[in-house]
Amino acid sequence: MTFEGLDGSGKSTQLRKLAQWLEAEGREVTVTRQPGDTRIGELIRTLILDSRTENLAPKAELGLMFSDRAQGIAEVIEPALAAGRIVLCDRFTDSTEAYQGGGRQLGSELVLSLHAAMCAGLQPDLTLLLLPDFERSLTRARARNTRSASRGKDENRFEKEDEIFYRRVWDAYHQIAIRETVRVIAIEGDEGIEEVHQRIVERVKQRLGMHA
Amino acid sequence: MTFEGLDGSGKSTQLRKLAQWLEAEGREVTVTRQPGDTRIGELIRTLILDSRTENLAPKAELGLMFSDRAQGIAEVIEPALAAGRIVLCDRFTDSTEAYQGGGRQLGSELVLSLHAAMCAGLQPDLTLLLLPDFERSLTRARARNTRSASRGKDENRFEKEDEIFYRRVWDAYHQIAIRETVRVIAIEGDEGIEEVHQRIVERVKQRLGMHA
Repeated sequence: MTFEGLDGSGKSTQLRKLAQWLEAEGREVTVTRQPGDTRIGELIRTLILDSRTENLAPKAELGLMFSDRAQGIAEVIEPALAAGRIVLCDRFTDSTEAYQGGGRQLGSELVLSLHAAMCAGLQPDLTLLLLPDFERSLTRARARNTRSASRGKDENRFEKEDEIFYRRVWDAYHQIAIRETVRVIAIEGDEGIEEVHQRIVERVKQRLGMHA
Repeated sequence: MTFEGLDGSGKSTQLRKLAQWLEAEGREVTVTRQPGDTRIGELIRTLILDSRTENLAPKAELGLMFSDRAQGIAEVIEPALAAGRIVLCDRFTDSTEAYQGGGRQLGSELVLSLHAAMCAGLQPDLTLLLLPDFERSLTRARARNTRSASRGKDENRFEKEDEIFYRRVWDAYHQIAIRETVRVIAIEGDEGIEEVHQRIVERVKQRLGMHA
């Protein structure tokens, strides 16, 4: 399963809560994130976010995203799936389609062709896409950016981008939700953390065939 | 133009000599290498050769090679070509096809599909492939490896690989030479540096339409 959405959408919080809930249900869970949840992924993540790489070409960034993904699949995801564990991944190819395909305008086709080549077609069984309406998403992202800046951090290239960029990313996520009606469950509302968690739990129960 | 061949084939020496000759002829020349001839490329090269990435997945390595290439094209090669300069590149996609496609057995098709996606189909006008017979290539590569080791360096993953790996790389280069009869000029003999240089100069003169 993957969690997707813009920065500040609450996806990482919801991922943690679902992991706790699954573990309380006796499931074995592996939590991972992209980019950067292997030693190599950390090095790639550092490279992407490094201020020395401000002039990173969009296709070079795209290649780095898929290098990280190929490493994460080989080192973390495939062994966990083979051991029968539930894998919860914070961002996957939908993020690349939204940010690099939409935001950086490389297009969905290029991203999906690289996914087919680099990820052997591996697809999540279920994707939880947290996508509040655009204005709210933007407000949250700006608030996060301000907090990061006030801590003297310069860690997130995406958060430096402007509203037009965010609009393209949001639109790309929205298109994915429209296209992938079985795999992707979009949570578009703006309920509280607990309400969203309960909605996710219900969907996951259905998908895993768990009954109350 | 690109120079290709196994480690120790003499391609970098020949590239330098051709660059000097072209400049003496009044041509403007840009010399570059892959991986690693931009700031970002250096970081990627370091990542690939880093001893912490011993478990680098083959597809992750492949993605890094093409990230570097996309950056090199955007930052170095396209601006130089646009300015009318002759670009001499030490390794390009043929190396990736030989090492990752052949050596690491990812296959030519995958490498060429990534090339099409990541490099917008950019192809060298002329590729000089230095490919002495296999036994001689292997002897040279071993000698280089021993020298590197004696300097306490652990810089080149490729040179740690065994003879079977080298055989696959050599075979892949050989197949490229057979397939790409117009673009690729294979120099299979084992002449001295000056003799090889003269042969290259003749071929380049023909290709550039230069007359004595």
